[in-house]
Amino acid sequence: MIATAKSTLDELCAFVRETAMLESIQSLLEWDERTKMPVQAGEYRAEQITYLSGMIHQRRTDPRIEQWLDELVASPLADDPHSDIGTTARQLRRDYDRRTRLPQSLVEALTRQSVLGQQAWVKAREENNFRAFRPCLEEMIRLKKEQAAAIGFCSQPYDALLDEYEPGESTERVAAILAGLREQLSPLVAEVVATGKQAPIEILRREYPTSKQEAFGQAVAARIGFSFERGRLDVTHHPFCSGMGPHDCRITTRYDAHFFPSAFFGILHEAGHGIYDQGLRSEQYGLPPGSYVSLGIHESQSRLWENFVGRNYSFWRYFFPQAQAAFPSALAGVRLEEFYFAINQVQPSLIRVEADEATYNLHIIVRFELEQALIRGDLVVADLPAAWREKYREYLGIEPADDADGVLQDIHWSAGLFGYFPTYLLGNLYAAQFYDAADRQLGGLEGLFAQGEFEPLLLWLRHNIHQQGQCYSPGELALRVSGQPLAPTALMGHLRRKLAPLYGIRCG
Amino acid sequence: MIATAKSTLDELCAFVRETAMLESIQSLLEWDERTKMPVQAGEYRAEQITYLSGMIHQRRTDPRIEQWLDELVASPLADDPHSDIGTTARQLRRDYDRRTRLPQSLVEALTRQSVLGQQAWVKAREENNFRAFRPCLEEMIRLKKEQAAAIGFCSQPYDALLDEYEPGESTERVAAILAGLREQLSPLVAEVVATGKQAPIEILRREYPTSKQEAFGQAVAARIGFSFERGRLDVTHHPFCSGMGPHDCRITTRYDAHFFPSAFFGILHEAGHGIYDQGLRSEQYGLPPGSYVSLGIHESQSRLWENFVGRNYSFWRYFFPQAQAAFPSALAGVRLEEFYFAINQVQPSLIRVEADEATYNLHIIVRFELEQALIRGDLVVADLPAAWREKYREYLGIEPADDADGVLQDIHWSAGLFGYFPTYLLGNLYAAQFYDAADRQLGGLEGLFAQGEFEPLLLWLRHNIHQQGQCYSPGELALRVSGQPLAPTALMGHLRRKLAPLYGIRCG
Repeated sequence: MIATAKSTLDELCAFVRETAMLESIQSLLEWDERTKMPVQAGEYRAEQITYLSGMIHQRRTDPRIEQWLDELVASPLADDPHSDIGTTARQLRRDYDRRTRLPQSLVEALTRQSVLGQQAWVKAREENNFRAFRPCLEEMIRLKKEQAAAIGFCSQPYDALLDEYEPGESTERVAAILAGLREQLSPLVAEVVATGKQAPIEILRREYPTSKQEAFGQAVAARIGFSFERGRLDVTHHPFCSGMGPHDCRITTRYDAHFFPSAFFGILHEAGHGIYDQGLRSEQYGLPPGSYVSLGIHESQSRLWENFVGRNYSFWRYFFPQAQAAFPSALAGVRLEEFYFAINQVQPSLIRVEADEATYNLHIIVRFELEQALIRGDLVVADLPAAWREKYREYLGIEPADDADGVLQDIHWSAGLFGYFPTYLLGNLYAAQFYDAADRQLGGLEGLFAQGEFEPLLLWLRHNIHQQGQCYSPGELALRVSGQPLAPTALMGHLRRKLAPLYGIRCG
Repeated sequence: MIATAKSTLDELCAFVRETAMLESIQSLLEWDERTKMPVQAGEYRAEQITYLSGMIHQRRTDPRIEQWLDELVASPLADDPHSDIGTTARQLRRDYDRRTRLPQSLVEALTRQSVLGQQAWVKAREENNFRAFRPCLEEMIRLKKEQAAAIGFCSQPYDALLDEYEPGESTERVAAILAGLREQLSPLVAEVVATGKQAPIEILRREYPTSKQEAFGQAVAARIGFSFERGRLDVTHHPFCSGMGPHDCRITTRYDAHFFPSAFFGILHEAGHGIYDQGLRSEQYGLPPGSYVSLGIHESQSRLWENFVGRNYSFWRYFFPQAQAAFPSALAGVRLEEFYFAINQVQPSLIRVEADEATYNLHIIVRFELEQALIRGDLVVADLPAAWREKYREYLGIEPADDADGVLQDIHWSAGLFGYFPTYLLGNLYAAQFYDAADRQLGGLEGLFAQGEFEPLLLWLRHNIHQQGQCYSPGELALRVSGQPLAPTALMGHLRRKLAPLYGIRCG
């Protein structure tokens, strides 16, 4: 019986690994499309990707998977839910169920509406015309509700959408955590604004030659632990990180020769994603024990390196002299304290992707509350722009002059990505708790950073998070690693501790 | 009946196009491996490529192909052998037959021996140890004879191997042409050597900054007609040209900051391949009417742009001032005539890939004669090094001090590529005949080159060669385009006309 189950497991895993191989090939096609592909090759590239996608979908919904899983769970092999086999059985079942519950016609309708929606969004944003985008968004919301109904949910349709990205998470719990954060963060930001204090951000807008930025960014990414023997750094329009094999993870960025932070912190951010990817168990590549657990946890790794490490004072005690050597015309004579304040400025702004570490979270809360209301039916699309402005006024104290800089700024909804935004914020919250835990367990990280020592933190993350794959849910993982359920406490503590001395406000 | 045949044709073509799509994806995997891939990703990349190869092989030998072809040839649709449909039927049949005649065990043995052979070759060359490589080569020759027997041939086993790369060509005919060339070329080279005249090649060994070489090479490639909207130029160790879609053809080169010709003529060479690829009928991508006809014809396009255009005096009348502007420290004060002589130096040398336009052909003749003798059984592997030295002495007047610079210099035999070498030389011969025909029909090309006008030649090649796909065999194509069967005449005329004034020898 065990022997049969073992051979079932082998067959199942071999099949899933082959599918993962096709997916890794698709990743290369997509990476190439966004970094290297000649302009006229786009149409055929879309055909290549569609062709592989079809093959992958067919394999992911192959009825043999269900048979294998049924045989496997009938055996004692999969009894321990956190073992590799238990994890494999549970997560493959989850994936299979989610996929097969969607009727083919709905999958196609969603794909088509996503393409149409993104096209309409690009045009609507250019023309600052929300009305033109409205029908597309309405149709997409209709389809997402249909999708949620097909998948099933405990308490509300948004649960089913959120669960796609953050398995096991509930709308109610996330809403409570985000509301808790908002109640503390919004006043903190107001307090910072009220000081009237301005960081010397002009420093960051001087001349930073692109090739030097690339070399410096690459050196720092390597130093914190991103392996260039198992990865690359390239240029793209919309930076991303993508894996195309157990030892091939590629990050991307874009350079602005007159703004240092965009590429530098972008590289740290993507390197954080890449370090997670490179830390997964390569012998389990393509299988649940070797896969990332959720978008929120993935984002926690990028945010941890970008913000908790990369905007840390001790980090710059080590790297600032190197930065001055790399960018003498911009940084000669600049004091570390000035530079540190500049990269940690907090100021409410309209555009999410340009927001600072603190206000970024408020941008997400706006989106989360609005998309929840849209899916619940409490808000109709026609009223969305007004609701958007209202929330920005309330949470950030500013509001957009037009929809292009307001409700039309993000691509997500046009592509059907509902339930995705909160993972950005969950990432920040997870990062804060993980950082605190590492700091405690490793006896203080800042002393290490000041010496350019990042390996202890890297190894801690490898052991506690990366190597766990999908053996625990994001919530279980956070609890195991930090000893606390997810809450706003750690992030708020981090922000207050950082901002208090910079802005001369009370620390807690 | 026609309607049924039409739907058979559609099914067949759709199937073949899908296979071509998988092949195009494989091309991207291979291009990436050789240009961008992180070092540690190699093992998984090999798995990805092997996996796709298996899928492709299965499709290329799918019995439905035979059924479709049988139905198709029974209809009048495929009656005209040079029509798209006739070409499709003929060439797919050829491909299917060649593949299915090989037993699976032989395919695997050849693949394995090719991998082992290449590994043994790398080591043997490093250690200058032909004896260590000998058993591998013996085994490979045994397998190649087995392969030839399985495929079948008219008069001798080498026919079957040659036919792989140069469809419809016979050993006897190629041997006669090459012998004819050798009888004229060997004395011409001896005549050049006897003058004792040295070209001022030191000019080419000055400082040529890599980034300038790249910009200049890219500009020239674009000017002669390689489209960078449908292609790229990247760096690699062993330059190649590879297509991964109807509008995606990528060329590669390597730079030596102290030797101008290697990257520049390398780029022209690969751009010539790329221009052919970009000139194929995109709507027939993956089907015989949209595929290159043979390696010899492919090589004719690279050689034509590299040597007949790129080493032409008029070409440099146009480009030399640009080269001087790009490389002022190397070329300021250099006269066009000196530069032209330097890039057209003829001098017997030991290494094929570094040989000049004239002596290159003698390197190929040596290999062709030896590999023919090996396959025929007239020469045993143990005697190969001595035979190699003997032929170099006879045809080039020099001989290698050791086997590393002799019989071990090329990878081809270790990889089982018998019948491949002559296509390089056939390419030169085709190029000469095509160039002469274009020159006649367009009323003189040099006047155009001197004005930087390359489009007339490009369009002529598009129309006469590229757009023909596989509708004619290489031999038929040469006859149609140049009015002459393939012969050494045009190439010899070209070389004599060029070398006579440079070396002060008689013109004919």
